[in-house]
Amino acid sequence: MIALGIDPGLSLTGWGVIEVFDRYKITPLNYGCIRTKPTQTLVERLQNINADLQAIINKYKPDVAAIEQLFFLKKAASVAQVGQARGAIVLTLALNKIKLFEYNPRSVKIALTGYGSADKFQMQNMVKIALGLKEVPQPDDAADALAMAICHVNTAGVKSATNE
Amino acid sequence: MIALGIDPGLSLTGWGVIEVFDRYKITPLNYGCIRTKPTQTLVERLQNINADLQAIINKYKPDVAAIEQLFFLKKAASVAQVGQARGAIVLTLALNKIKLFEYNPRSVKIALTGYGSADKFQMQNMVKIALGLKEVPQPDDAADALAMAICHVNTAGVKSATNE
Repeated sequence: MIALGIDPGLSLTGWGVIEVFDRYKITPLNYGCIRTKPTQTLVERLQNINADLQAIINKYKPDVAAIEQLFFLKKAASVAQVGQARGAIVLTLALNKIKLFEYNPRSVKIALTGYGSADKFQMQNMVKIALGLKEVPQPDDAADALAMAICHVNTAGVKSATNE
Repeated sequence: MIALGIDPGLSLTGWGVIEVFDRYKITPLNYGCIRTKPTQTLVERLQNINADLQAIINKYKPDVAAIEQLFFLKKAASVAQVGQARGAIVLTLALNKIKLFEYNPRSVKIALTGYGSADKFQMQNMVKIALGLKEVPQPDDAADALAMAICHVNTAGVKSATNE
């Protein structure tokens, strides 16, 4: 199974693709960031995200995707930006018939480190270990996206995985 | 020219298509609402909006689309819902290469009634008059979408029209 993790944002969307074999062994296929610029119009930015995500889907053909639940702790203006990017991303995945799973941040922390209050450093370190990498993946958004994909693989079928 | 006005929402997206001929004469082609249910998943709701909007685009082949700017006066949870719907809508328009224009509520009021503090009743009445309808279009979301399309036609090329 190939899982695509996504950390959505209008300026920066982290992504990470992992493959699972022999049920529990996971290996990273690739990861990175989709970047858009504030000088681009909203239309251009969403097109950019769509096109880059489509290229990733075409190349790695993920079976499933995992994305963080949208939280509202941030100010409304940033929720609006993330929300629009997320809407375009979810639609792109849906048009490609890729099954999408949502996880809340606490579930992701528990899935990776075993407890729900893990800090950023612990999380990134676990991503590195789980994927057998020499370094923590950069930038942070790509590491977060990989964490999401690992979370899905570790908890798929378990009740904390809520099919969006 | 055929203009599509859109009032985006996750539960209810109003839409209205108008045609302009002889430069200033406008006539309504059709209007209505795209509805999704809270019992649907987010993926299903965005797919539903995308499919219905695509059918409207295929049928009326709009040259341009007009949409309200996203404001942040509402609570973050509703901004997140509208934002995700709006992201899916903007991407659907972009994938169809339909040029999109954004208007703020005050510009729409000025374009239709001549002043920026017009109330809902005055706005709906002007939509009815401008389109030569016997009744105010229902529901409100469809009337708002038609107002957006009329605003674009009335102000296209004027500085209040900001190409998103």
